[in-house]
Amino acid sequence: MAELPEAWESRGRPPTLFRRFEFERYSGTRAFLDAVAALTEEAGRHPQKINFGTTYVNITLEAANGGEIGEGEIDLATRINALYKPASA
Amino acid sequence: MAELPEAWESRGRPPTLFRRFEFERYSGTRAFLDAVAALTEEAGRHPQKINFGTTYVNITLEAANGGEIGEGEIDLATRINALYKPASA
Repeated sequence: MAELPEAWESRGRPPTLFRRFEFERYSGTRAFLDAVAALTEEAGRHPQKINFGTTYVNITLEAANGGEIGEGEIDLATRINALYKPASA
Repeated sequence: MAELPEAWESRGRPPTLFRRFEFERYSGTRAFLDAVAALTEEAGRHPQKINFGTTYVNITLEAANGGEIGEGEIDLATRINALYKPASA
């Protein structure tokens, strides 16, 4: 598998890509969720599993074909990272 | 506790209100998520925990003060129900 984007980890079987994003307040969480929705819309890939609360968003990406994590997932994870403005920003 | 809105159940300790919403495709899921975000914004209440995938949204509402479920949660759950267009619609 290619190198994982910053702060993502591989989990489970079949493997998935997972990352937790944290925010200082809900406005940041909301802006990030909206940006992820727009990105996945544009990329033609639905978020397979997103779990969020007031100040966090956990994202799990599954392989498109139920197999190994590939370039598609790595690329999506990298683009999601680019949307993230950490809590301290 | 007042009567629960349709299809919501009380879970855990401290108690929370939980309901799962299912959709036929992602467009329905997305529209519902956006409507819930607008509603909670207007109501001044953040969604405490939302878990979604391509065709489902699980919502957990916690009591505002960490205590018992009250009118505020019941009212929010009722308004969320009103946003739901089931998969068959």
